[in-house]
Amino acid sequence: MFLTRSEYDRGVNTFSPEGRLFQVEYAIEAIKLGSIAIGVKTSEGVVLGVEKRITSPLLVGSSIEKILEIDNHIGCAMSGLTADSRTIIEHARVEAQNHTFVYEEHIPVESLSQSICDLALRFGEGAHGEESIMSRPFGVSLLVAGYDHKGPQLYYTDPSGSLVLYEAKAIGAGSEGAQTELQQSYYKTMSLEEAEVLVLKVLKQVMEEKLTNSNIQLAKVTPSKGYQIHTADELAAIIARLDEQE
Amino acid sequence: MFLTRSEYDRGVNTFSPEGRLFQVEYAIEAIKLGSIAIGVKTSEGVVLGVEKRITSPLLVGSSIEKILEIDNHIGCAMSGLTADSRTIIEHARVEAQNHTFVYEEHIPVESLSQSICDLALRFGEGAHGEESIMSRPFGVSLLVAGYDHKGPQLYYTDPSGSLVLYEAKAIGAGSEGAQTELQQSYYKTMSLEEAEVLVLKVLKQVMEEKLTNSNIQLAKVTPSKGYQIHTADELAAIIARLDEQE
Amino acid sequence: MFLTRSEYDRGVNTFSPEGRLFQVEYAIEAIKLGSIAIGVKTSEGVVLGVEKRITSPLLVGSSIEKILEIDNHIGCAMSGLTADSRTIIEHARVEAQNHTFVYEEHIPVESLSQSICDLALRFGEGAHGEESIMSRPFGVSLLVAGYDHKGPQLYYTDPSGSLVLYEAKAIGAGSEGAQTELQQSYYKTMSLEEAEVLVLKVLKQVMEEKLTNSNIQLAKVTPSKGYQIHTADELAAIIARLDEQE
Amino acid sequence: MFLTRSEYDRGVNTFSPEGRLFQVEYAIEAIKLGSIAIGVKTSEGVVLGVEKRITSPLLVGSSIEKILEIDNHIGCAMSGLTADSRTIIEHARVEAQNHTFVYEEHIPVESLSQSICDLALRFGEGAHGEESIMSRPFGVSLLVAGYDHKGPQLYYTDPSGSLVLYEAKAIGAGSEGAQTELQQSYYKTMSLEEAEVLVLKVLKQVMEEKLTNSNIQLAKVTPSKGYQIHTADELAAIIARLDEQE
Amino acid sequence: MFLTRSEYDRGVNTFSPEGRLFQVEYAIEAIKLGSIAIGVKTSEGVVLGVEKRITSPLLVGSSIEKILEIDNHIGCAMSGLTADSRTIIEHARVEAQNHTFVYEEHIPVESLSQSICDLALRFGEGAHGEESIMSRPFGVSLLVAGYDHKGPQLYYTDPSGSLVLYEAKAIGAGSEGAQTELQQSYYKTMSLEEAEVLVLKVLKQVMEEKLTNSNIQLAKVTPSKGYQIHTADELAAIIARLDEQE
Amino acid sequence: MFLTRSEYDRGVNTFSPEGRLFQVEYAIEAIKLGSIAIGVKTSEGVVLGVEKRITSPLLVGSSIEKILEIDNHIGCAMSGLTADSRTIIEHARVEAQNHTFVYEEHIPVESLSQSICDLALRFGEGAHGEESIMSRPFGVSLLVAGYDHKGPQLYYTDPSGSLVLYEAKAIGAGSEGAQTELQQSYYKTMSLEEAEVLVLKVLKQVMEEKLTNSNIQLAKVTPSKGYQIHTADELAAIIARLDEQE
Amino acid sequence: MFLTRSEYDRGVNTFSPEGRLFQVEYAIEAIKLGSIAIGVKTSEGVVLGVEKRITSPLLVGSSIEKILEIDNHIGCAMSGLTADSRTIIEHARVEAQNHTFVYEEHIPVESLSQSICDLALRFGEGAHGEESIMSRPFGVSLLVAGYDHKGPQLYYTDPSGSLVLYEAKAIGAGSEGAQTELQQSYYKTMSLEEAEVLVLKVLKQVMEEKLTNSNIQLAKVTPSKGYQIHTADELAAIIARLDEQE
Repeated sequence: MFLTRSEYDRGVNTFSPEGRLFQVEYAIEAIKLGSIAIGVKTSEGVVLGVEKRITSPLLVGSSIEKILEIDNHIGCAMSGLTADSRTIIEHARVEAQNHTFVYEEHIPVESLSQSICDLALRFGEGAHGEESIMSRPFGVSLLVAGYDHKGPQLYYTDPSGSLVLYEAKAIGAGSEGAQTELQQSYYKTMSLEEAEVLVLKVLKQVMEEKLTNSNIQLAKVTPSKGYQIHTADELAAIIARLDEQE
Repeated sequence: MFLTRSEYDRGVNTFSPEGRLFQVEYAIEAIKLGSIAIGVKTSEGVVLGVEKRITSPLLVGSSIEKILEIDNHIGCAMSGLTADSRTIIEHARVEAQNHTFVYEEHIPVESLSQSICDLALRFGEGAHGEESIMSRPFGVSLLVAGYDHKGPQLYYTDPSGSLVLYEAKAIGAGSEGAQTELQQSYYKTMSLEEAEVLVLKVLKQVMEEKLTNSNIQLAKVTPSKGYQIHTADELAAIIARLDEQE
Repeated sequence: MFLTRSEYDRGVNTFSPEGRLFQVEYAIEAIKLGSIAIGVKTSEGVVLGVEKRITSPLLVGSSIEKILEIDNHIGCAMSGLTADSRTIIEHARVEAQNHTFVYEEHIPVESLSQSICDLALRFGEGAHGEESIMSRPFGVSLLVAGYDHKGPQLYYTDPSGSLVLYEAKAIGAGSEGAQTELQQSYYKTMSLEEAEVLVLKVLKQVMEEKLTNSNIQLAKVTPSKGYQIHTADELAAIIARLDEQE
Repeated sequence: MFLTRSEYDRGVNTFSPEGRLFQVEYAIEAIKLGSIAIGVKTSEGVVLGVEKRITSPLLVGSSIEKILEIDNHIGCAMSGLTADSRTIIEHARVEAQNHTFVYEEHIPVESLSQSICDLALRFGEGAHGEESIMSRPFGVSLLVAGYDHKGPQLYYTDPSGSLVLYEAKAIGAGSEGAQTELQQSYYKTMSLEEAEVLVLKVLKQVMEEKLTNSNIQLAKVTPSKGYQIHTADELAAIIARLDEQE
Repeated sequence: MFLTRSEYDRGVNTFSPEGRLFQVEYAIEAIKLGSIAIGVKTSEGVVLGVEKRITSPLLVGSSIEKILEIDNHIGCAMSGLTADSRTIIEHARVEAQNHTFVYEEHIPVESLSQSICDLALRFGEGAHGEESIMSRPFGVSLLVAGYDHKGPQLYYTDPSGSLVLYEAKAIGAGSEGAQTELQQSYYKTMSLEEAEVLVLKVLKQVMEEKLTNSNIQLAKVTPSKGYQIHTADELAAIIARLDEQE
Repeated sequence: MFLTRSEYDRGVNTFSPEGRLFQVEYAIEAIKLGSIAIGVKTSEGVVLGVEKRITSPLLVGSSIEKILEIDNHIGCAMSGLTADSRTIIEHARVEAQNHTFVYEEHIPVESLSQSICDLALRFGEGAHGEESIMSRPFGVSLLVAGYDHKGPQLYYTDPSGSLVLYEAKAIGAGSEGAQTELQQSYYKTMSLEEAEVLVLKVLKQVMEEKLTNSNIQLAKVTPSKGYQIHTADELAAIIARLDEQE
Repeated sequence: MFLTRSEYDRGVNTFSPEGRLFQVEYAIEAIKLGSIAIGVKTSEGVVLGVEKRITSPLLVGSSIEKILEIDNHIGCAMSGLTADSRTIIEHARVEAQNHTFVYEEHIPVESLSQSICDLALRFGEGAHGEESIMSRPFGVSLLVAGYDHKGPQLYYTDPSGSLVLYEAKAIGAGSEGAQTELQQSYYKTMSLEEAEVLVLKVLKQVMEEKLTNSNIQLAKVTPSKGYQIHTADELAAIIARLDEQE
């Protein structure tokens, strides 16, 4: 089995005898090495939360951004190769601006997420028809949170270019345990505040470090105020709420 | 045998001594890993049905679309790599629109299916004559259902670019058993309603999960109303009819 | 011997020490896997006949076309990879139309066949001088039947780009036995009707399935009426004639 | 020795440690697999003769052409890959026409032969300076027979691009024995008729099949009438002359 | 483990089964072979210090520059391949000038650092979308020190294109011990003069040679005077201060 | 040793660990397989002589030209691959004509020789800056003999692109013995006639065949008459002179 | 160790696990095979000296030039592949002329040396951003001697593109011993005449052949007279001075 695997997995875009594309599967592995990111959808909006790995005490934690705004009604949390995510998010922001410019309305969350997936397919050596951006698959997954006429939505994209809508989703290192926890605790009628506490609770379980207001990020996307990322003070308040409950 | 196989199967477009193109055959394998899709043609129209794999209870099933509209007289069901199918279907929609624009009539189902197969051949590194879209074969098969002056038609396309007309066809994981079932139960004078029940019956036999109105999709293409996908309520009604019969 | 073979046969366009081009030879092998096609020339015209493999009872046999019209005085029967043949035949049709447009006469059968062979040579990675259409040899052989000022003609083309004129020729799976049969039964003064019966007789011997009017195709090219493909009824009549004789 | 050979002989254009280019040498081997071609020069003109391999009794022998006209004062006989020779001869015909058009005189035989050799060098992947026509060496040798102000000339070209003038030369399968025979029987004062008989005599010795007027071709290039290929009747007459002598 | 590593690490841009990009990791190794560079941020400005390896007594030490000005408010210290750093710094200088020209203000330190990271991603064979500058990752890391409306900042960039803000950071050979020392001695309220002594103290510990004013470089970026590199005399004075303290 | 050699010697332009370029060295080997060429410089002019290998009695020896005119004051003798030499000499002739056209004077011998060496460097796959002419090194060496304001000159060029001025030089098969003989017999005050006899004497020693006026070529470049190649009669006279001396 | 080395050292631009670029290191090896070159800087100017390897008594020594003028205030001595050096020096001369044309002043020695190093980086297959000149690293090192407003300068460039200023430097075969000798004998207050004797003394120690005025070259760059290469007579005089001292 091992031998067979190693024979087919280096061509960036080659099928194995079982019909698998190993380089894409390995890129998905790269995401399992990344820090955890969690998204939870409620009827009031979507909550995103991530762990920030502070590898050195002299590192300025606030410079690590794993939740980013795409448009003022859409944000995303990432896991995987940071540098790859910049290319994708830059692309997504341009798509969003173009849509607004052409149609004079916010880009629908699904269209935006779809354009990210289309980009994910544009890699490899032989693809002349469309410009290829990368010579390998992107090593990054995104949780795209947004709000439009269809209400709050949480999309999940991965290196294979597939796109799925979730009510709550965890990605990155430790995401399997986190997803199980989400399934047990999530309920559809959750308020946004309850969702914030749930995200923190799951992060706390997965993270090796003690959860503080400097090693996580938390953001929400609501119909009224769009994308908002929490300040350190706001984070501290939500952590306090979590502690009360426990 | 094993050795010989592994020696010829990595070049994207290389013949083996027996005259086989392994990368195309492996792409066909990729489809056997996909979820099942079924098409049945009647004189009143064509029915398409697919399984949706809901891998997590928090996944929003309605966001998984394996049956898609190509034009208002043509729809298709897919099995294999979802991301690859998007490229193909996008291409097919543009072909259909172009035809309508140039000739002021609906594109014939055969022409549309043919254009999908032509696209399937455009892969590989050395092909400069026509723009190559992919550096590997597409890992997706389609059941194209449509209606034109020749009446209802059900085409089957695969990664090798071959195109065949079927009266009833199943593709994806478990398709062999499903095809046997179709051969036993299909008859030419079936009504559209009977075909819908037949599709559900075959899906039910193949799927590991219990068949519900959220883990399948069902669509029909009729001369009068064109492409129509069933809502969850309509699905529930047809499932009820199936249960009555059994 | 085996070792030597495997060392030289993967480069698409590389000579072995014996001066052989293995990839072209393997493409010729691909044709031996295809269904049988037969052509017989008489002074009244040329007859083409093919087997259609109906792999499933639900497959609509009439959608499988292995005999195709190129111009109204030229038709062809193919064996090998169906998808490759489409590219070649499309090319041939354009050549024929261009000739008619430029010279205001039908393209001679030889010129048309020659243009197919020229296309067969245009593969490989390094060929910049002429646009290469494929990154591998075409896996298809054709029997080109036509009529012009030189009278009826039957050309045979293969993946190596060679072009030969035959009086009667069989290609595809079982073609060796069929060719022997043709040599024994063919005579130059045959009428077109006798040739039709001969083609059916040879098909009958080679095919594993019982020969019916739905699993074969038969066409003729005559000076008076050009390319004509037989309908199912006409086929049934000729099969009846064959049965009478036996 | 074997090992060393196999290590250097697959790169299309790579020197071995002994300074050899194996792919070119293998292409020369391809010619040894071809049917025999013979050329003999006299003061009255040049004679070309070839064997035609009629592999099937239903093959129309007259469609196999191994002696071709390049211009009305130059013809050539080929041995090796038929399809490759078409590209070369097409190129040579264009060169000849261009020369006539520009200089208003027939192209000298040497210039024409030289242009064929220059084409033979234009293969390989890395050659951007001049357009490369092929990704491998041409697998064909030519005997170019012509007449100009220097009198009758017989040039021999091979895949390495070298060009040599001969008085009499045999190429293809069995050419070694044929060349020995030519050396013994050729004399400078031969008449054209004697040369024709000599060519037939040598062909007869080398060919496995019985020599007839349908499995050989014979042509001559003379100052008065230029390139002329013999009809079947003329061939029969010359064969009769040969039989008389023996 | 060793085997697995060697199988995936030569493709410039290929994922291993664990989702790692080895060529990028090896480029990071190249930096560990480079001479040490240290940066320390204070509220008054940023201090950069590097070791210069004087491999020969006849080498003119002043010609080795490992701290360079990018704009008059930004400087950087490098470790790794000197020649690679020139390409990056040239690029950064142009970015800075362009920004000033277009927006009539100094480029923010983060934007400048970001543009360096974007450049780091632009390598590899298949990337046609953006022009690739290198066929391999850049083998260089930078400490970018600057001052803008956000105050003094110290960014760290590496070959993977990641970008992190530090309060104090050491890179190159011996950087692990140096980073530990920085963590123990650094405090946020340090004055610029104290930071200069700290940098020298850490360099002294790591360097094998005796620290003199000719084998190190020291620079500072302050809001009032921008980028300033110390002369040999200024260096001697700071070394004297260090000696006093010890 | 053998293993190491075979590991580095197939890349057309790759250094071995010892800093050697094997493909260039192998091309130099190709020249040692070629027929011998000799050049001798005197104050009156330069003499060139070559062996012609007449491999068949029916080959027309006069069609083999291994000494060629480049301009009317420069000639050259070649050893190695004949077809490669044609490309180089064609290039040299154009350079010479261009120089005359632009500067209205003969191209200096050194400039002409230099342009040949520059061409020799333009091979390989990756060189986009200048157009590459070949995908491998040229397998040919030249002795360039000419006369200009610096007097008679004899340059030697090889596949590595190096250029050296000689007083007397032998290249090709047997050149080592020939060079030794030249060193013993050459003296600076030689007359042109003495040089001609010396060249013949050395050729005679090296050639396996008996030296005649049909299997060698001899040319001279003198200030008064420029490039002159000896006719068969002139050759016979010089051979007679050689025989007298012995 | 050996195995690891051979696995990473053939890709022209690939990092090994230790972060090394082997092809560049091997190119540096190529220089150790070259003949020795020495440079010595004084306050009055810079002296360059090289060995010329006269491999045959019939080789005209004066045609070997290893010290060349770049502009009339800059010269250079080379070691390594002669043909590579021509490309670099041609490039340097153009840079120098361009500078003079644009800025109406001599190019500074550092700028000129820098442009040589920039060229050294432009090799490899994947670099599209800047035109690549070579498909492998340049196998040549230079000692660039010049004079400008900063006084006399001696730069050393190598295949890795690094650039260092030296007071005295030896490169090529035997350079290690020579450098040691330079370190012992060099002092900053040396006169130009003393430097000339020093260069000869070191050459004499390293060269296997007896040092004469025909197997070395010596040049100087001074503020008053710029680049001057010594004639054979001048060389003889300096050799005499050296002999006196010993």
